[in-house]
Amino acid sequence: MDETMNFGLIGLGTMGGALALNIAEHGFPITVYNRTGEVTEHFTANAGELAQRLTPTATLEEFVAAIKPPRAIILMVPAGPVVDAQIDALAPLLGPGDVIIDAGNANYADTERRTCRAGDEEFDFIGIGVSGGEEGARHGPSIMVGGQPGHWQRLGHLFEAISAKYEGVPCAALMGQGGAGHFVKMVHNGIEYADMQMIAEAYSLMRDGMGQDSTRIARVFEQWNRGPLASYLIEISGKVARATDPITGAPMLDVIRDAAGQKGTGRWTAIEAQHLAVPVPVIEAAVAARNISARTDERAKGAEVFGQMPRALPEGALDLETLERALIAGKILCYAQGFEMLSVAAEKFFWDLPMATIARIWRAGCIIRSDMLNDMATALEGAEGESLIHAEPFRSLLQEHEAALRETVIAAMRTGIAVPALSSGLSWFDAMRTRRSSANIIQAQRDFFGAHSFQRLDGVDAPHGPWGDSPLAEG
Amino acid sequence: MDETMNFGLIGLGTMGGALALNIAEHGFPITVYNRTGEVTEHFTANAGELAQRLTPTATLEEFVAAIKPPRAIILMVPAGPVVDAQIDALAPLLGPGDVIIDAGNANYADTERRTCRAGDEEFDFIGIGVSGGEEGARHGPSIMVGGQPGHWQRLGHLFEAISAKYEGVPCAALMGQGGAGHFVKMVHNGIEYADMQMIAEAYSLMRDGMGQDSTRIARVFEQWNRGPLASYLIEISGKVARATDPITGAPMLDVIRDAAGQKGTGRWTAIEAQHLAVPVPVIEAAVAARNISARTDERAKGAEVFGQMPRALPEGALDLETLERALIAGKILCYAQGFEMLSVAAEKFFWDLPMATIARIWRAGCIIRSDMLNDMATALEGAEGESLIHAEPFRSLLQEHEAALRETVIAAMRTGIAVPALSSGLSWFDAMRTRRSSANIIQAQRDFFGAHSFQRLDGVDAPHGPWGDSPLAEG
Repeated sequence: MDETMNFGLIGLGTMGGALALNIAEHGFPITVYNRTGEVTEHFTANAGELAQRLTPTATLEEFVAAIKPPRAIILMVPAGPVVDAQIDALAPLLGPGDVIIDAGNANYADTERRTCRAGDEEFDFIGIGVSGGEEGARHGPSIMVGGQPGHWQRLGHLFEAISAKYEGVPCAALMGQGGAGHFVKMVHNGIEYADMQMIAEAYSLMRDGMGQDSTRIARVFEQWNRGPLASYLIEISGKVARATDPITGAPMLDVIRDAAGQKGTGRWTAIEAQHLAVPVPVIEAAVAARNISARTDERAKGAEVFGQMPRALPEGALDLETLERALIAGKILCYAQGFEMLSVAAEKFFWDLPMATIARIWRAGCIIRSDMLNDMATALEGAEGESLIHAEPFRSLLQEHEAALRETVIAAMRTGIAVPALSSGLSWFDAMRTRRSSANIIQAQRDFFGAHSFQRLDGVDAPHGPWGDSPLAEG
Repeated sequence: MDETMNFGLIGLGTMGGALALNIAEHGFPITVYNRTGEVTEHFTANAGELAQRLTPTATLEEFVAAIKPPRAIILMVPAGPVVDAQIDALAPLLGPGDVIIDAGNANYADTERRTCRAGDEEFDFIGIGVSGGEEGARHGPSIMVGGQPGHWQRLGHLFEAISAKYEGVPCAALMGQGGAGHFVKMVHNGIEYADMQMIAEAYSLMRDGMGQDSTRIARVFEQWNRGPLASYLIEISGKVARATDPITGAPMLDVIRDAAGQKGTGRWTAIEAQHLAVPVPVIEAAVAARNISARTDERAKGAEVFGQMPRALPEGALDLETLERALIAGKILCYAQGFEMLSVAAEKFFWDLPMATIARIWRAGCIIRSDMLNDMATALEGAEGESLIHAEPFRSLLQEHEAALRETVIAAMRTGIAVPALSSGLSWFDAMRTRRSSANIIQAQRDFFGAHSFQRLDGVDAPHGPWGDSPLAEG
């Protein structure tokens, strides 16, 4: 081992433990600490031969003392106040050149705040988004690094070593300063919500609309996973559809309650998109769908009062190939919204977000990993500030599959199958190709009741209407 | 005049000036002050015979001294830091029993914060939502009052006097403590966005889908304004469609640029709904539509690349009666979402929001005023915690008009006319009557990749799947 003993990690829960083992496995000695000492002991005792690279410590003082300066200390503790408390506890023990790395699921705004706070201290603070769950943390996550170029120079080799690889290329990169890493991670999660929701809508069309059983649905997902939709989420959709409940012998999907949980990162994306004034209707629809799913009693009551939805699709109303093509189009539209959000954020926060690189480090390790992201990386490389819908091959794919998306959404809406994400994608696409929208009447109304003024198409500077009997005209 | 000289108002801009005149007109003497003295002089000079009830003052000290304690000082200054600065400036001049009333367009969270801050001072602070624009402020707004019952006891007669009246009933009421008044006003504005967007979608279906000119469209709005849709927004839609451009002689609507502005209160509603986990897809769609409308270049490019949308509806695809019925259904769905948001907020913030009263004080004075709100007030009176979609007559109206909404959305989507608000409303309605949703596959996916666990329909406590080759099953 020629690596120095610079690395430490605090928080040996599921994610933290997995990350520590990943680091050790890649040849980096690492000092570890957990608030509850038994966790540390248990963790080290079960680390097998990797234990030789782990230095367990019992107190924070011992932990810091065991790491050679300049220290790089990874925090993997619950997001929120715990992170601040941990920084408070570490602060008096650290010196110049030491850096705290928050690898938890922080809100980017907290990371911005903590970075500023560290600016007054001797040590540095950076935030990194780590995607891929426990499995990713253990065997290779996608890592979205926030920080200065100097931080990347110093720590990039660690992040690259432990990250997932796509055809040998590490899925780790510097996103930008401050909260950039956690921001990109947040948008990743928003896209993840949308991707999952669109798959769920396709599932509903097959189950409710076409009356297919789980085995048949599993086969469809398995087949789609060999085509343009090939992705981790489609792959596991096939697997969960294929699984049998060991208790009842029924298909696993048929025994799972249809109330979706959420940890809130999709919601964060929707909120930040509002702040940025970027329309992300597919992500919003996905978050709303989870919220609606949790209203099980109200849904049952609605079914009773207004008639149970969904109904079966009429024979021949939709075929599986059309559905696959609709999902391809929907996915492109959703990613286009996500990347637009990143573009606008980059401008607002003065981040030089590397759009193509973002697509590249999402190709493996993270939940939304897919082959399509490989094409997106290439497409974004040449598309300076342009929407993904205009970058080839996606422009052509949309032209090719738009009709299928339209047909699918219409079939679903006719039958009462809720497809909010797919239909929001289509509405957005239609609006984004409408030269003359209906917002002129909104501007007229706003000027009528609030004198908010409008612009004219002919450029003449006459920003108010001749609203004869408008109250404002009188006043 | 037997009224004491308790009232003052700071900020004589458009809204503040109008409100001061309204107060004076109702017999209340009022001391006024504006940071720029000329504004005060100009205002008083133009107040006509109402000037006798106005006491103009030149400094803040003079202003406070001219008001008899206990003072009630209305702020109508720009929302944000200016309000805090004004409170700072007033604080040392005020005494026990004095109350500052922020009548501006504050974010409810700021009002909460300011209320707390005032808790440490001798004076009180309350926030009131005032809706209706300049015209409302001058001749009768809808007033949503935040504060303690004691504040209402003391000031309610003033708010009732200056408010709009619906069949003689004042459109002013106490909503709850702290930020409640501004919160309700915010939701009002979110509904306003949605209402306007659905009207704009109907306009687009007529203009683009049916090829109707503005005069014809004006006639339709005028006719609708005599039916169930009768409302201020439909009324002014008819008026702006009827107006002629004095410069070109063309219909006014045809010269107005189709890029909608916003002051951000619709956005606030969408953000708060996310925090509350309440799905408000119609409001979100309306905010997104404004954001999309502002992307004029991208829309033009999209039209060029993917083919211009919208196209004309096929002959007979949609008739005006169906469209009217679709709009009735869409409006009910949108209001149901808004009132649900208020219910959930009431629980979270410990506000005893008077739901029926809210509908009642929205019947006049504010932008969304309509006769339908009269029925909503009655419906909500008897519907403790129940969705508006289940309260008569709205349940029956939805049953009656649902098919028209479905037909309209499908016709629009087939033709590429973006109707994001109407279609989001329909998706929400379909989801709210789906007993068995597709969220089970989302729960299965989440458990597969993140061990997030799920519930089972049979209640058995076996919260994880038998995901044979799930990475987590291995680990």
